[in-house]
Amino acid sequence: MDAIGKVAVLGIGVLGSQIAFQVAYSGFEVTAYDIDTKALEEADRRLSGLIGSYEKLVPGATAGKATQARDRIVLTADLAAAVADADLVIEAVPEVLALKQEIYGKISRLAPAGTIFATNSSTLLPSEMKDFTGRPDRFLALHFANQIWRFNTAEVMGTPETDPAVFDRVVAFAKAIGMVPIPLRKEKAGYVLNSLLAPFLSAAANLAAGDYAHPHDVDKVWRIATGAPVGPFQIFDIIGLVTPYNIMSHGDERSQEIAAWLKENYIDKGKLGVATGEGFYSYK
Amino acid sequence: MDAIGKVAVLGIGVLGSQIAFQVAYSGFEVTAYDIDTKALEEADRRLSGLIGSYEKLVPGATAGKATQARDRIVLTADLAAAVADADLVIEAVPEVLALKQEIYGKISRLAPAGTIFATNSSTLLPSEMKDFTGRPDRFLALHFANQIWRFNTAEVMGTPETDPAVFDRVVAFAKAIGMVPIPLRKEKAGYVLNSLLAPFLSAAANLAAGDYAHPHDVDKVWRIATGAPVGPFQIFDIIGLVTPYNIMSHGDERSQEIAAWLKENYIDKGKLGVATGEGFYSYK
Repeated sequence: MDAIGKVAVLGIGVLGSQIAFQVAYSGFEVTAYDIDTKALEEADRRLSGLIGSYEKLVPGATAGKATQARDRIVLTADLAAAVADADLVIEAVPEVLALKQEIYGKISRLAPAGTIFATNSSTLLPSEMKDFTGRPDRFLALHFANQIWRFNTAEVMGTPETDPAVFDRVVAFAKAIGMVPIPLRKEKAGYVLNSLLAPFLSAAANLAAGDYAHPHDVDKVWRIATGAPVGPFQIFDIIGLVTPYNIMSHGDERSQEIAAWLKENYIDKGKLGVATGEGFYSYK
Repeated sequence: MDAIGKVAVLGIGVLGSQIAFQVAYSGFEVTAYDIDTKALEEADRRLSGLIGSYEKLVPGATAGKATQARDRIVLTADLAAAVADADLVIEAVPEVLALKQEIYGKISRLAPAGTIFATNSSTLLPSEMKDFTGRPDRFLALHFANQIWRFNTAEVMGTPETDPAVFDRVVAFAKAIGMVPIPLRKEKAGYVLNSLLAPFLSAAANLAAGDYAHPHDVDKVWRIATGAPVGPFQIFDIIGLVTPYNIMSHGDERSQEIAAWLKENYIDKGKLGVATGEGFYSYK
């Protein structure tokens, strides 16, 4: 089976722009689609900003190399043109199932039959979208992390219908763009990372919300015992408290109590984490 | 209230010897009790071995300093003599409740009324022993980690009857012997560290036992995403697989399935972790 050459990225938001940039930076031609002129203007600003980020943060990124990556990305609001000759489409549109299903319905007709579709969804399972793709055997999830150049994992997760050869091709592509592929053999909500983080952060929050121990002390034990640079409450602050709050408030009774504690003591006080200058720690 | 001066350590096994050595290394006079001549001979070998470990592994430990620490420890099989003038007794006898209750019953009569008792138990709650101490207000848990010179946390946990001033005194003592005190405001099985580790390791084991992802891939995601030097399966190997197995085999149905998976694929094959040269990784 041929290797992947041309890539289309759909949805050029915070993560979509990083995916497009990383793919282009790795030497691939990229078509970057977003919905209208306004969205494309924002996408253009994001991509231009990434030139500076890569020069500053990526070892070996010279001015020329990052600029060339940007030059390899063609922005378009024409969905048909975006996917017309793509070997791989990476979909990174907002996390709304209906929206994703709609766009797969469209590109199922616009893209060549051989094109592989990959969703970057972090909270939805590919099974929920596969029937809209017109090619369930050539469809899977390819999940990146924010600050892709630094947190370079690519979780690869198919449905029971995904062709193993397609799966392997996407794993090889992930390697080719500088990612560490993390293959999942079966569908799992939260993939690997969030399947670990959710119970870990819940256990930590339970210790603090139950008034057993202070968040800073919980972090200290974890750092000393495991050699980790950050403890669970520092991770909360980095992720931001709102996403864990939303997840916990849909959990069991104890999870809901912890969510209420997060809301009352932190979220309602504007302590959302690093982004707001304060969470479990102050960053002012 | 007076600061702690003289310390007795009861049970000079792997961790008890480290506790005695660390306390003596910090300048305190230590009486180290074990049950008979044979146990004391082993204790003597352990303590002598720690001189070399400290010289090699503890920054700033000179030959003279570690030898002096050893010289500050008096070994005895005479329980009455061990606790006669101790300000603090740290109990580190085997994790058998009846054994601990028995020794507290004895020292409740042998130690001065003002002596503080602290249990190093990792799996029992101080409430289960307090009624045997004759001084529930002067009794709490003080929990150290193996390789005390490196993993220098001291989890401090009282019962509802522990005098807050005694609690604070033990926290100050923990600092004085170079520990990072981790105060727990209420009793909690597993203290802080194991309350985090247990669900974290369970979630990881569930991913591998459920055939979602390979242990090495699970570790990769965790290391890359959190910057930690080790992932959950590397932690399994360091701890050894038997203790997590024992805990999980007493858990709910899914935990028991995971325990069975650990047993079949690793424990029954002698893959117990770093100590046996192989676990989830090979160390040969």
